[in-house]
Amino acid sequence: MAFQSLPGFRDFFPAEHAARRHIQSAWRGTAERYAFEEYDGPPLEPLELYIEKSGQEIVDQLYAFEDKGGRQVALRPEMTPTLARMVGEHGRALPKPIRWFSMPQLFRYERAQRGRLREHFQWNVDVIGEPDITADVEVLSVALDGLTALGLGPADVVARVNDRRLLESLLLGAGVPRDRLGGAYAAIDKMSREDAERTKQRLREDAGLGPDVVDAVLALFAEDLAGLRSIHGGDAAVAAEVDRLESYFTLLDEMGWSRHVEFDPRIVRGLAYYTGTVFEIFDRKGELRAICGGGRYDDLLSAVSDLQLPAVGFGMGDVVLGELLRERGLLPTSAPSPDYYVVTITEGERPLLRRLARALRGEGRSVSYTLRQVGVGKQFKDANARGASEVIVLGPDEVTAGVAVVRTMKDGTERRVELTELGA
Amino acid sequence: MAFQSLPGFRDFFPAEHAARRHIQSAWRGTAERYAFEEYDGPPLEPLELYIEKSGQEIVDQLYAFEDKGGRQVALRPEMTPTLARMVGEHGRALPKPIRWFSMPQLFRYERAQRGRLREHFQWNVDVIGEPDITADVEVLSVALDGLTALGLGPADVVARVNDRRLLESLLLGAGVPRDRLGGAYAAIDKMSREDAERTKQRLREDAGLGPDVVDAVLALFAEDLAGLRSIHGGDAAVAAEVDRLESYFTLLDEMGWSRHVEFDPRIVRGLAYYTGTVFEIFDRKGELRAICGGGRYDDLLSAVSDLQLPAVGFGMGDVVLGELLRERGLLPTSAPSPDYYVVTITEGERPLLRRLARALRGEGRSVSYTLRQVGVGKQFKDANARGASEVIVLGPDEVTAGVAVVRTMKDGTERRVELTELGA
Repeated sequence: MAFQSLPGFRDFFPAEHAARRHIQSAWRGTAERYAFEEYDGPPLEPLELYIEKSGQEIVDQLYAFEDKGGRQVALRPEMTPTLARMVGEHGRALPKPIRWFSMPQLFRYERAQRGRLREHFQWNVDVIGEPDITADVEVLSVALDGLTALGLGPADVVARVNDRRLLESLLLGAGVPRDRLGGAYAAIDKMSREDAERTKQRLREDAGLGPDVVDAVLALFAEDLAGLRSIHGGDAAVAAEVDRLESYFTLLDEMGWSRHVEFDPRIVRGLAYYTGTVFEIFDRKGELRAICGGGRYDDLLSAVSDLQLPAVGFGMGDVVLGELLRERGLLPTSAPSPDYYVVTITEGERPLLRRLARALRGEGRSVSYTLRQVGVGKQFKDANARGASEVIVLGPDEVTAGVAVVRTMKDGTERRVELTELGA
Repeated sequence: MAFQSLPGFRDFFPAEHAARRHIQSAWRGTAERYAFEEYDGPPLEPLELYIEKSGQEIVDQLYAFEDKGGRQVALRPEMTPTLARMVGEHGRALPKPIRWFSMPQLFRYERAQRGRLREHFQWNVDVIGEPDITADVEVLSVALDGLTALGLGPADVVARVNDRRLLESLLLGAGVPRDRLGGAYAAIDKMSREDAERTKQRLREDAGLGPDVVDAVLALFAEDLAGLRSIHGGDAAVAAEVDRLESYFTLLDEMGWSRHVEFDPRIVRGLAYYTGTVFEIFDRKGELRAICGGGRYDDLLSAVSDLQLPAVGFGMGDVVLGELLRERGLLPTSAPSPDYYVVTITEGERPLLRRLARALRGEGRSVSYTLRQVGVGKQFKDANARGASEVIVLGPDEVTAGVAVVRTMKDGTERRVELTELGA
């Protein structure tokens, strides 16, 4: 009886695992250079945790079930609720701001489509307890440095940046009633993927705005930050938000990201909980879905815990990022290869092989060999198949003389090495 | 509203995560020195995969549920069925033997008891496609080297080793009917935790053996390997199995493990699928449950795939191992600390701070700082709280002179360093 994996779930054979690990090592290494600390939570959480944050409709997208103890539980679809729960529990005692990262596997029950998975790994980086824009800068800087570590520069990726507070003040200034902001956000969120007529229709019909207001709203998106300031800067709320966003860009520039970052007032982010800066990182050609999304969410912690702390963070998944890296030839395509492969001419060298392997491994080198004595040709063939860098040949004559022949596989050169030098 | 995690699931705050990662790094590093390749599968699998291997009764111990597509699914309780499924799918094309490892999180719905978790991480190492005893040696050697890498030597841990084939031939020789072997195994499996009377009772009542056979069975456990050979070596089946197990010990000795390994005919392993050598690793004092268990399972692959390949492997969990390491003071108790903490005397040095942080991080160093300008005392306090090794102080005078003061926190010594030397 042959079994298959569930649809939407990946098997990581060694080559695919090497690619996943390459990405995760870059993520971890980058977060640690920024002195973020790694945490993790359970993949299974109380369902209520997600309903509290995202509403009852989230249940349709979850792997949710009742466990044997009668608890409603769900496989985690995102990390932020777990983060908020954990910070709520122990956050009072921690130095602020909290600088944490995680790389959880997340789960969604999405309709299976081509390339749509039901699980992915996501790099989560958050600063909790700092309301200042410098925290927003730090977080975006980590995301961009993570991509840099993977070989992606400003010609490959771009961060599109906005601020929900700026957008709100602009929309209010354009005549959008406060109770229709949600509808307007939803239409704006889709602008970059739809034509102007469709956006107009959404603003009129879905958001319920009159034709003059719709025109005023659409005119906002023709301007850059300087343009918005010169046209709408008389509105003190708008001016304050333009100031803040400009200082955000200045600080990002000082961190070296001026070529990576662009203002884009259409960036809204679907999730309801963002309260300030928002950003999405895309491949520069715009062929793929967003690689990363994040922003400020100052109200979430108080919703799922007893703590009220401002927060800013992002999530970067491994799937779209993996597609881009693979396309660029920036991912390993096989598992790491052994440093040494030991070949024995006769069974008599097998005890020495075992001692030698132990010694080399004790020095941190990786060592492979056939487990049983087989023909020398077969051993070399296996050394090749496994991609060994060097082959150490042990034969009766050499062993008597206390030496081994070491062949470098990429150029076939051979040298004689004292066994004592190899540690045996 | 404050939420809690589900019972039996761990939150990994940074200190706990550092301990988990310390263990997993040792596991991974060791497996790679033995040239094993890392793989992973989905945490959610078709329920049938586990029923096929372990029978319908396993369902009671699983997180099993019906997904929205009407599929019966389960959170993985162990890795071997996934391994067998994956090897069954692509194993034909791979060089043999397959040398793979994984470090999955596994899930069981056990009655919640003190210290009993419903999830744990488990190091799985397997050699697939090699029937020879050298594969069994390789696998146990990896397990012992993994413990060595964590600081545990022969005074701390011991591997108790047996062979199901030897036990079978001994039991048949003692008069146990073939159809009562299962009952006898179950009684023997419990011998080391129960008194002699209870074992006798089990052999009589549960296994249904007559008093003479019970005595003959119990007498087996008074002997070491040499004793078994001298008493039962006339039985060719027993002699062959003693030979094999002796060569197993000889090879382990050549790998350097003579002080770590002991013959123990009571080791059976609960799981029904073992077909050859079996072993369990315990803390030497015998205070904890088994740290690791494994052995040969030559029939499993054909049960869940179209391939028939011999296999040997082990699973080592992080919970009991973690207890032992913690008791020995061999686990980190906090997250990694930053290499540098940058302190600015005035707001004016903040742009330099950002450039300097970027430069140091570009060289792979970890750097922290307060995100906003605050009092210098507060910055030093934070540097202490986060455990920074060195503090770089940037002040207006020093900056004008192109230097910074670098303080080594552990002894309070200070030195002046050129800014260019720091990369800024």
